[in-house]
Amino acid sequence: MNSFKDSRLAVVRLSDDEHEVIILDQTRLPGHEEYLRISDEERAWTAIKRLEIRGAPAIGVFAGYAMYVLAQRYADKPYPEFLAEFRRQAEYLNSSRPTAVNLSWALRRQTRLVEAHEGCTGSEIVKLLGEEAHKIDAENEEMTRKIAEYGVSLIKDGDGILTHCNAGYLACLGYGTATAPIYYGAEQGMTLHVYSDETRPLLQGARLTSFELQKAGIDVTLICDNMASIVMKQGRINAVFVGCDRIAANGDFANKIGTSGVAILAKYYGIPFYTLGPSSTIDFDTPTGADIHIEQRDPDEVRSMWYREPMALPDVKCYNPSFDVTDHSLLSGIVTERGIVTAPFEENLRKLFQK
Amino acid sequence: MNSFKDSRLAVVRLSDDEHEVIILDQTRLPGHEEYLRISDEERAWTAIKRLEIRGAPAIGVFAGYAMYVLAQRYADKPYPEFLAEFRRQAEYLNSSRPTAVNLSWALRRQTRLVEAHEGCTGSEIVKLLGEEAHKIDAENEEMTRKIAEYGVSLIKDGDGILTHCNAGYLACLGYGTATAPIYYGAEQGMTLHVYSDETRPLLQGARLTSFELQKAGIDVTLICDNMASIVMKQGRINAVFVGCDRIAANGDFANKIGTSGVAILAKYYGIPFYTLGPSSTIDFDTPTGADIHIEQRDPDEVRSMWYREPMALPDVKCYNPSFDVTDHSLLSGIVTERGIVTAPFEENLRKLFQK
Repeated sequence: MNSFKDSRLAVVRLSDDEHEVIILDQTRLPGHEEYLRISDEERAWTAIKRLEIRGAPAIGVFAGYAMYVLAQRYADKPYPEFLAEFRRQAEYLNSSRPTAVNLSWALRRQTRLVEAHEGCTGSEIVKLLGEEAHKIDAENEEMTRKIAEYGVSLIKDGDGILTHCNAGYLACLGYGTATAPIYYGAEQGMTLHVYSDETRPLLQGARLTSFELQKAGIDVTLICDNMASIVMKQGRINAVFVGCDRIAANGDFANKIGTSGVAILAKYYGIPFYTLGPSSTIDFDTPTGADIHIEQRDPDEVRSMWYREPMALPDVKCYNPSFDVTDHSLLSGIVTERGIVTAPFEENLRKLFQK
Repeated sequence: MNSFKDSRLAVVRLSDDEHEVIILDQTRLPGHEEYLRISDEERAWTAIKRLEIRGAPAIGVFAGYAMYVLAQRYADKPYPEFLAEFRRQAEYLNSSRPTAVNLSWALRRQTRLVEAHEGCTGSEIVKLLGEEAHKIDAENEEMTRKIAEYGVSLIKDGDGILTHCNAGYLACLGYGTATAPIYYGAEQGMTLHVYSDETRPLLQGARLTSFELQKAGIDVTLICDNMASIVMKQGRINAVFVGCDRIAANGDFANKIGTSGVAILAKYYGIPFYTLGPSSTIDFDTPTGADIHIEQRDPDEVRSMWYREPMALPDVKCYNPSFDVTDHSLLSGIVTERGIVTAPFEENLRKLFQK
């Protein structure tokens, strides 16, 4: 595979005239590859809300482009009105998914740019917003490439790699994060065998990860979450790569529900287990995993939503946490764009990121 | 809950006139409680094949009753023809699920009864077949009651119990096997909190276990397989109870895919892990778990069969083993109708069962 970049689907991009953001509708995958053209604020808000665009980095990049596209509509307004309108829209978009760190980060970045150019015309500022949006995109792409370069040192030709949920390019653009060493290794000529946990209840591993890997020509096998143990036991797995939603100061990290179980299995079978993500995921204000709040989701995701028929009694209690926390003692390393952090995590995270 | 026995659905029974076997159609659960009346050999064969009746003990009891019902139709034949017809039907039914140990065992038991009564009339033999069928049923019920009595010593009021797949009364009749201490404990006045793994890909935990426990008034919470780690970490689980398909001489055992992963998690969190099943499950001719063949099933069970839309690319590779093997080192004990076997398993299994 030499042309991974060319084979990727375009998750977020501008239209040729730059009046619209075009996104791949991820709610329609894997059955349908459909694109949505977005040029007004309600539709941008809905796209995030409905998870048509998803994954923290992809949402951040989308928000950068969206603010650029939306600002074109009132470029002729005098600065105070321009700024007020820009702030209102940023706040509105931010309300679509309040917990998405990259969303508010990208919106703040664009807002600060507007605030810093009081003397300029609307059209001048709009031009700068476009450049900044491209910069956010390029920086993100570069982040995934760095993770790819560090991560690929952890694997070799012929390896089997297990991943959970989707931290691929559909969520993170570029090379993805958990998938970065896989795509990058394949570009270098490695043959890799990926096992993708389907990741109940929302099936991101089945719907997204196995989809994007297969489309990119990577050898991928889809398994149910409860098959991770048998494929590890059979010696098929040389490393586990997963993404991360938040990394605490001591190296504990929150990721999609089931991640901690995979980590325990990997430890039992003696398989190295890595989380890969941008350094922006590290939250030094969260001392340990115990301080991370775990969102509970709708029971119907478990008992009925995907199914032709109800798969359990309609009133059966379901426990449906969206994330779990993996203890740092189960972690072989944290792969970031700045390098690979190993134990002792608390000390080494501070060394690398808190100069 | 004082009336578990009264609250159970009738999984297998004779009609009042004893001309039919009536079974609960388990393919229609949990959405529909429907019963099938079976009085001819093709329908009996299909009922096993289609998993309308399922679970090794339930299939064994069904086979006993079915041979009784079918034999009524040729009770007027002279002995040699009666025997030939009986043998042909037994062989035919046995072909419906060749790997089901209890099926062939029950068919052999009824066939031996016919063979042992050469001097009798067809009607006399039919009467004996009816008595034998009831005996098979009663012995099975007694087996589950014994497992219940031994198993209940492992838990206490207020405990949380995790189970995987379905080894309840729908599969095993009576108290079930993995569920036996739960139902029995509840009869004794214990309040227990059961967590039922949904058990992908066939969802027996969602469709059957959470169904039968809830119907019986037991507090049950359905979880996805990948949530076992978080509920254990949160201290909700005091013991894990699972069934078994085959126990090797060294205590390794095969059970529904995912069982070995649950066992590893339980070990990590320091939670006792038991398998419960009749001593007929112990196979001294299988030295270790490595000698147990693991059946591979249809990839579509993983990627599409239950779903409204395809949940993965139609041509994505899936690995879909039906069972996995749990190493005896992960096992706190094997609960049988003859007692609880603990380590060293090889020695103690021989002591209890190979006099």
